[in-house]
Formats: sequence, structure tokens, C-alpha cells
Amino acid sequence: MTAATSIHPGTLTRLPARRGVAIRLSRGQTLKLINTHGQQVVDTWAFNPADLSETMSMEHSRAFWLKLNPSAGDSFLTNKRQPIITLVEDTSPGVHDTLIAACDPTRYVHLGVVGHHDSCNENLFHALETLGLTIRDTPSPLNLFMNVPVRQDGRIEFAAPVSEPGQYVCLRAEMDAIVVLSACPQDITAVNGMQPQDVHYSVF
Amino acid sequence: MTAATSIHPGTLTRLPARRGVAIRLSRGQTLKLINTHGQQVVDTWAFNPADLSETMSMEHSRAFWLKLNPSAGDSFLTNKRQPIITLVEDTSPGVHDTLIAACDPTRYVHLGVVGHHDSCNENLFHALETLGLTIRDTPSPLNLFMNVPVRQDGRIEFAAPVSEPGQYVCLRAEMDAIVVLSACPQDITAVNGMQPQDVHYSVF
Repeated sequence: MTAATSIHPGTLTRLPARRGVAIRLSRGQTLKLINTHGQQVVDTWAFNPADLSETMSMEHSRAFWLKLNPSAGDSFLTNKRQPIITLVEDTSPGVHDTLIAACDPTRYVHLGVVGHHDSCNENLFHALETLGLTIRDTPSPLNLFMNVPVRQDGRIEFAAPVSEPGQYVCLRAEMDAIVVLSACPQDITAVNGMQPQDVHYSVF
Repeated sequence: MTAATSIHPGTLTRLPARRGVAIRLSRGQTLKLINTHGQQVVDTWAFNPADLSETMSMEHSRAFWLKLNPSAGDSFLTNKRQPIITLVEDTSPGVHDTLIAACDPTRYVHLGVVGHHDSCNENLFHALETLGLTIRDTPSPLNLFMNVPVRQDGRIEFAAPVSEPGQYVCLRAEMDAIVVLSACPQDITAVNGMQPQDVHYSVF
């Protein structure tokens, strides 16, 4: 039994810094994700377990909300325009990102890193592998707690998170779903407060 | 020989209202796309012909530009962070969209349409079929001439285009590429000026 399938309802589980996890949710279950240390970005994906090509889609969700970012009560749509998860509670200031791709090995090469660097993109693939699953392409992620301010002229920047230790979001599954979380290993830009940290989650 | 492969350099070709076309570009070639009637949105994709899973990516391009929208001189990156096309010239006011998914049959059902309605998503698949190609997933499109204002509070709306008849963009291929254009058949919201129209293009 993998870490991903051994979760007992309500148990608080640690997602180590720089790592990912895939979590099976049944319709109606809620995933609570706690930003334990406050400054950790968590890249998040959701897939239809019956058809992995149906994925949570930022471009479909924005068109549905008519907003860049979700607020409590907003559902995310898949690329088939079906609700897959709803942000049912958010005790953080509500600053998340739907605009930016997951970090990947090439991103770190561009940032000047020599040798291997963990990435959210690799975490996604490894997490799904623990469930015996593979995908070909990486959907645009929901970057929880990531602070990408948009200026009036359309310019954006990577800024430090504004979330505080212990703040959390709750995501309710609107259909059976596989949710993947990646505690972003970015430590070159300010986007993670420069120090990747553990986060914790539970399912109920 | 399909429409897509019969283009002679410099020849002005009509893309009929509501239709799509797939165009093979060699590295260094430029595609000029003219908004003949001024109010037509053109959903645009680009693929690596050697690996169709490598596609122009809005989420990677925004992270590269640090902007929501491109300006003349900006290159679009693929999901492997390689430049694939560059917006080398833009005589329109520069209002395009990188945030919104392509329209698809489900979108029109949600808008109350009964029966079939053409869509950019179907145009993409049909256009690639003319080259004998199939893809599984639809990348987030570059919506040329589409006007999606972003307010300071993050709210967005679908507004009428601000481009004028005859204004154009030029896209230069930075690698061999298959570019797909879809003259958006949207006639339910104001985003196309309520009247889908022909556009014209040439390759040089």
C-alpha cells in the first residue's frame, strides 16, 4: 500500500518539503491543506480517475469564474467543463495563482542551477507513479498560496507568499478525483519565501 | 494536396468565418494574419511537428514575459520552454488574450445553444486532420484580437475587440512549427463583435 492510499480519514499527514503526493478523493470528500510554516507554495492538480486526460483546467475555470483567482465557494472546472473540486474554505488571505506553469528541470537550468534540482513537474509524475498511473502532459497547475501580483498594465511578478503559519484551504471533490500536491521546491526566487518547508493535509 | 500545404509564399489566403486551418511553417518563416473586418478573434496554437505533445504554452510564456499579454518582440515558449513563435509585428492596439480556453461544444450548450454549433476546439482537431495528425488534448490557446480586460480586483470580462479592419500581426517561427488558426465562431457573446467574419493570412 502506498503512502497515497494509506490515508485514514481525518489523520494529519505530513507532505515533506520538496515532495509530492497523489491522493484519491471520492466525490464529497474534502482535502484540508495546511500551510504549516506559512510561506510554502503548493502546486495542485486534479484528474478524473476514469479518464486521466480530463484534468482540472485553469483556462476553463477562469472563464467560468470571470476572475483570475478563486474565492471560497468557487468550483474548478475540468477541460470538459465539469466541476471537479470546490474551494470550500480558505483561511489565508486568498492569494493564489492560476497563471504560471509548474517548475521543471529546464526552469532551474534557466535559473542557473547546475546539476539536478527537484521540481513540481517531476513531483507530479512521481506521485502518480505511486498509484501506478502515468500522464503525458502537465496541465497548468493551481498554485496554492503563490503570490503573483498583476499590475494594471498587465505586468506580473513573483513575490513572497502572504499566507501565515497554520492557514489552510479546504478542497471538496465534486466528482471522484485524484488530487496531486507538490510542496514546491523552488528556492531560487522569492516565491516560496526562499525556504521550502513541509506542509500537512488531511482528508475527511 | 490539402489547403494547408498548398500555400505559396506571399499568397493571401482566406480563412472563412467559423473555420480553422493548419499551416506548416519552417523555422524563420513568418505568418501574417490580417483581421480583415476588424472584429474577428482568432484562436491560435503552435505545435512541434516532430513531437505534437510539445505545444505553445500560455502558462510558460507568461512566466517568461512576466506579463499577461505579449507585445511585439515577445516570443512564445513551448511546454518545454523553447521559443516556438515570436510576435514580430502587431499593428493592432495589442489587445490579445492568453487566459481563456477555446470554445467547444459544451461551452455552447452552457450558453443555451440547441443543436450543433461550430467551435474553435473542433476547428483545431479538424485542421490537424487535414495534415493527417491527431492530438488528444487541447492546449490553452493564444486568442489573437480577443479583448478580456482584467480589473484591479482580478475580475475579467468578455468585451468586444478593439482591433480595426486590416490590422494584422506577424508571427515568426523560431523552430519548425505547425500553427493552427481558428476564426472563432462565437456569436453568442460580444467577444467577436457578434458576427463571425473571414480573416486572411499569408506566409513569407
